[in-house]
Amino acid sequence: MTPAGRIRPAREGRRGFLRQALALSGAAGLSGAARAEGDPAILKLPPHSMGLGQPVAARGYGLPSQYESNLQRRQSPGLTRVPQASVSFTPLQGLFGIITPSGLHFERHHQGWWDIDPARHRLMLMGLVRQPKVYTMDDLMRLPAVSRIHFIECGANTGMEWGNAAVPSVQYTHGMLGCCEYTGVRLSTLLEDCGADLKRGKYVLAEGADGASLTRTIAMERALEDAIVAWGMNGEMLRPENGYPLRLVVPGVQGVSWVKWLRRLEVGDAPWDTREEVLHYVDLMPDGMHRQYSSIQECKSVITTPSGGQKLLARGYYDVSGLAWSGRGRVRRVDLSFDGGRNWRGARLEGPVLSKSLTRFNLGWVWDGGPAILQSRAMDETGYVQPQIRQLREVRGTRSIYHNNAIQSWQVAAGGEVSNVQVY
Amino acid sequence: MTPAGRIRPAREGRRGFLRQALALSGAAGLSGAARAEGDPAILKLPPHSMGLGQPVAARGYGLPSQYESNLQRRQSPGLTRVPQASVSFTPLQGLFGIITPSGLHFERHHQGWWDIDPARHRLMLMGLVRQPKVYTMDDLMRLPAVSRIHFIECGANTGMEWGNAAVPSVQYTHGMLGCCEYTGVRLSTLLEDCGADLKRGKYVLAEGADGASLTRTIAMERALEDAIVAWGMNGEMLRPENGYPLRLVVPGVQGVSWVKWLRRLEVGDAPWDTREEVLHYVDLMPDGMHRQYSSIQECKSVITTPSGGQKLLARGYYDVSGLAWSGRGRVRRVDLSFDGGRNWRGARLEGPVLSKSLTRFNLGWVWDGGPAILQSRAMDETGYVQPQIRQLREVRGTRSIYHNNAIQSWQVAAGGEVSNVQVY
Repeated sequence: MTPAGRIRPAREGRRGFLRQALALSGAAGLSGAARAEGDPAILKLPPHSMGLGQPVAARGYGLPSQYESNLQRRQSPGLTRVPQASVSFTPLQGLFGIITPSGLHFERHHQGWWDIDPARHRLMLMGLVRQPKVYTMDDLMRLPAVSRIHFIECGANTGMEWGNAAVPSVQYTHGMLGCCEYTGVRLSTLLEDCGADLKRGKYVLAEGADGASLTRTIAMERALEDAIVAWGMNGEMLRPENGYPLRLVVPGVQGVSWVKWLRRLEVGDAPWDTREEVLHYVDLMPDGMHRQYSSIQECKSVITTPSGGQKLLARGYYDVSGLAWSGRGRVRRVDLSFDGGRNWRGARLEGPVLSKSLTRFNLGWVWDGGPAILQSRAMDETGYVQPQIRQLREVRGTRSIYHNNAIQSWQVAAGGEVSNVQVY
Repeated sequence: MTPAGRIRPAREGRRGFLRQALALSGAAGLSGAARAEGDPAILKLPPHSMGLGQPVAARGYGLPSQYESNLQRRQSPGLTRVPQASVSFTPLQGLFGIITPSGLHFERHHQGWWDIDPARHRLMLMGLVRQPKVYTMDDLMRLPAVSRIHFIECGANTGMEWGNAAVPSVQYTHGMLGCCEYTGVRLSTLLEDCGADLKRGKYVLAEGADGASLTRTIAMERALEDAIVAWGMNGEMLRPENGYPLRLVVPGVQGVSWVKWLRRLEVGDAPWDTREEVLHYVDLMPDGMHRQYSSIQECKSVITTPSGGQKLLARGYYDVSGLAWSGRGRVRRVDLSFDGGRNWRGARLEGPVLSKSLTRFNLGWVWDGGPAILQSRAMDETGYVQPQIRQLREVRGTRSIYHNNAIQSWQVAAGGEVSNVQVY
């Protein structure tokens, strides 16, 4: 949730009405959150209670309120040389619950996106199979479908934070993250349909139909477990920038493996070691070696409200809210600290708590007006606990780009300004 | 899911690419669903595999593909005298999973919709309370928030079917239906904050800030159980046509009680018997009496694919798919019949199966090319079974408008055309 009155946006990405200050007495607790009786504004009916409004859409596709126009996905300027190989980030600071609206879902491309005509799109399945096949969208969409809610996170999400606290807001620290309901046919169904050789076939290659021909190796166990060849996203067809008409969904695995505009699957007996597997998406370890194929997104969490760039406008009660997730399964618990990690309290988890999905957490906190450091720490069902940045650096060094799942710290200044800091 | 190739749209509301016929041999089973190897179209790379695509959005709000422009919410022409008091229906025939995209969510207004400035919006809570209060959006959004996935169904959904099979497609028979993730503060939290008198206060009145001042009575048990004063819908703020910035969410209860543009709540000791409770939203029974306050949406289901107005293009395997829901809790099972109700088979339910939420079901069916009548029948966790239209008429007569939860029949003609029929 976004705490409207209590936070003033210091940067872009906040709704306009949040700029209205809250005339609070500063008293803590629920009773302090409401105004005194008899606000004259309410005593007379507003004009819209006495008028004829807008008609229903004769036909059409709806859009957000004009007052929400400031909440957008945004590119981080200068991040890459060309905007076709860039990122536009999800505005996590303004979102609620676990579903990411498709219109605000992050984009990350290697050579730009396409709006591919589904009538011309083909998926080829080949390699170690009894019967190679070429599927039309029509062929795929008559096969048994499944629908699943899963998070997707770019392996480079939070990558700027390996060094110092680098970017100002949660949109830029954690905004290569989304969670949608995906619908499609299980990859295992297609492998069965083509008679994949499961004795020799230990890997599946997935290739996209973009200019980068983005290509990734998926281990066969994962392909058979829960991967989906998906056309649906949040109830409708995928958006073009998210792979329309077909993308691979590999739950728990970094976004680059969720190949967009999916055009080819190949069954093989060894990893392909493609460009995106040997030159990129590798973890540079302290000993100078590269760690490859570290594709699982480990347990992680972040407080989205309040978060960097926002401002607390008054002392008192706050519903601190955020997101937790794990590529290994369900989130078991989330603890919050308001003093930089000395004391921790368990947060409420909103249901349903699903495997390899975002989980929304909330916890009440009374701000006394003084400095504070807010942190969240998630634990998944395997017992893995999200590490401090110090712990992560001890193992991984500081020269990685990918797979930074460290605890995020937001510093609240005495004036209420919230900023990105690192606590060691 | 929408079975692309196997169905050709005979009416509006289908995607253009569905018009492509599927070159199927007609063989049943999975292996019949894919083309023979070596489609020449795939052997050379498509142009987008060799080009530079579109850049990421520098800032913006994303939209569906140009190829999806035919999938829209649509008003039923002539349904009402003025479009401000009309309905625009959800295109269920083209949706997947359980989440309804906000841009395609049905609208139903009594006097038109407004895009209300949240900075000026107020919610008043009054009546049998210790401390009446006026809340700003800022006040509300700092209170403890919850997020829940629930269906909403207009009480008049499927109302045209009390007589004969009246409208051609599932968009118009069942399209006053949606399912979203809602975020807000529990109504019980606000009642506690104002010190509601739970001894004398047995009802809560909810009033909207539209021109109709739409006003409904909510029983206190329901208000305390799971009602939400919501600002979030599918991860972002409510859309204007769905009540932005604030609507009441009353899970399991007909849509009219989910008061939009919520401006006033009043605690009282008796129902208010407002216009929308005594003149409308009542059930005319066979004995000429009106049944009032029958607000729960009983267990119901509908096959969305294939459905009226579509056409099966080839014999063979189909993944028949649809939606089931109950205002009393979870869906326990859904059975499908392909012969007008003589034989039934249990469908697969997609998880998560949530209380007072839509549940997606799927079941494989091999069409032999002959006439067939497709039906779905849901049972909820209370053991209630969705009735046949004959059973419903025996109790309720034929002059009702509201609360028609009968089994829906889709007739498949020998040529593959699917149409709306009633089976007695």
